[in-house]
Amino acid sequence: MTERECAAWLRERDGFLILTHVRPDGDTLGCAGALKLALNALGKTAWVARNPGITETYADYMTGLYAPENFVPEHIVAVDVATEGLFPSAFAQYKGKVALCIDHHPSNEFYAQETCLDAAAAACGEIIYRICTLLGVMDAEIAKQLYIAISTDCGCFAYNNTTAETHRIAAELFTWGDFWQQVNKNCFQTLSLKEIRLQNRLLESMVFYDDGATAIGAISLKDLSDLQASQGDSEELSSWANKIEGVRVAATLRQLEKRVWKLSLRTGGWLNATKVCALLGGGGHAAAAGATMRDVDEAEAREKTLAAIRAVQAEG
Amino acid sequence: MTERECAAWLRERDGFLILTHVRPDGDTLGCAGALKLALNALGKTAWVARNPGITETYADYMTGLYAPENFVPEHIVAVDVATEGLFPSAFAQYKGKVALCIDHHPSNEFYAQETCLDAAAAACGEIIYRICTLLGVMDAEIAKQLYIAISTDCGCFAYNNTTAETHRIAAELFTWGDFWQQVNKNCFQTLSLKEIRLQNRLLESMVFYDDGATAIGAISLKDLSDLQASQGDSEELSSWANKIEGVRVAATLRQLEKRVWKLSLRTGGWLNATKVCALLGGGGHAAAAGATMRDVDEAEAREKTLAAIRAVQAEG
Repeated sequence: MTERECAAWLRERDGFLILTHVRPDGDTLGCAGALKLALNALGKTAWVARNPGITETYADYMTGLYAPENFVPEHIVAVDVATEGLFPSAFAQYKGKVALCIDHHPSNEFYAQETCLDAAAAACGEIIYRICTLLGVMDAEIAKQLYIAISTDCGCFAYNNTTAETHRIAAELFTWGDFWQQVNKNCFQTLSLKEIRLQNRLLESMVFYDDGATAIGAISLKDLSDLQASQGDSEELSSWANKIEGVRVAATLRQLEKRVWKLSLRTGGWLNATKVCALLGGGGHAAAAGATMRDVDEAEAREKTLAAIRAVQAEG
Repeated sequence: MTERECAAWLRERDGFLILTHVRPDGDTLGCAGALKLALNALGKTAWVARNPGITETYADYMTGLYAPENFVPEHIVAVDVATEGLFPSAFAQYKGKVALCIDHHPSNEFYAQETCLDAAAAACGEIIYRICTLLGVMDAEIAKQLYIAISTDCGCFAYNNTTAETHRIAAELFTWGDFWQQVNKNCFQTLSLKEIRLQNRLLESMVFYDDGATAIGAISLKDLSDLQASQGDSEELSSWANKIEGVRVAATLRQLEKRVWKLSLRTGGWLNATKVCALLGGGGHAAAAGATMRDVDEAEAREKTLAAIRAVQAEG
């Protein structure tokens, strides 16, 4: 459905529960927060489902937005969630029951009854911004949630998915206050000593191919425990790896469980990241995608990653 | 003079030489490049004076913009240069001869015959953008120079000096092409291994005060030579230091010569950086300022820096 139809759909209904994806990032959380507040502003009941995977970076922004235990939703809405496979296990009960999905992933599987998709949007937050505009609601709190969604998904306007529209929306959001300063400080201008040490660990683990243009690095659970770091501390490592001079294809493997490794692939458009990750059962965008490999050790995860990269490189 | 008067002043004249400041950053260079190209587009002769301090990051962007050796300018224009003290020594001959200065530094000393100053602009590039608009000239090359100027001075829209106007201008510039992708990759998404190692060296050198809220670190010429790094490689260290979790006032000392140390102070508005640096003979903005200390060793430079911070903290 179009954004206009989506706004009308929301306007006609009430009693919403909003779902986010597993290992929630700023886009999915900010979209959920903004949509909840926008629907509230229209006098409707709407809550965000508590995602157990939320990291410290975003936890404070979600205070007061979570559905109470006894809330019985009428309509389930998923934001920035491309497939039901990306539901956190806590949301398993909602599989097959999503009434509306608002998303910007080209890999969206149309699992919801209605889908509002714009694969050209830098962030799902851009779509939610336009829906808020169509609904005629905006305030400083909604603007803050939208800024979190948009700015985090485009790397604070540095990634190639940024567009003129992204900047235009940011300019509009800025008119609602200085909230973005604290978001920028928190999301883009804060390096924990743990992160710095994780970066160094990742760098040491990197194996370079193609004259340094392809890099595969890995962070194990042991690395995390050595540095007293959490999965949250390691989230930005994949973007970081892609910044190393000369690296065009950056593959960061993070161990999630004993024999489970998560690949985050950044290719800056040099290689189709979605295709590589699809070969490993994952998905995402052309320049940034991911996949989770089960029943593999680190060496096998590295081999599978390299093989998938080679296969897509061979396609030309 | 106002931007409108400034545009009229430029339109009435010809034969411009454009000066940039010592240790040139993206703003001063991008402004010079954009203004040169805009004046050329009006059929005028205009060149950028070759700044010997240009770093590798920006060198390619200035290709073809430098004045030929035999060029005799009619009018000297300085962009983003707050005082004649910030002229590179190669420009000493132009002291007292600047006809027009376009700048956004509140510390501007009005050394030029005419000054077009907007201290609220995130970057001098915003002023040049508006002057280009008033002159009715814009193309992809001018837009690229302006994007370099603006994006580098606001840390790719992450620093607190960013405004709605900054994003609005970025949205306009984006309509001229994809040039910004390569600028972002080059200026914000590339970490050299040297930089990473310099960051680690700076971190090791840091002394923390005020429960970790104040940090003073130093990079010596020996550090640079140990890591085979240049002053250019160490330029972004001060912004980096300010990102460390808990640090509010980040002082980065870089040794320029045997007994010469350059302080770069980042305070994110927690302390008036201009006031601190003024005590050491420097200047800049409230959140980011600098000063060069002569005839001091590292320990003395650290002491003077801490004393200046303490003096401004004591003012309350």
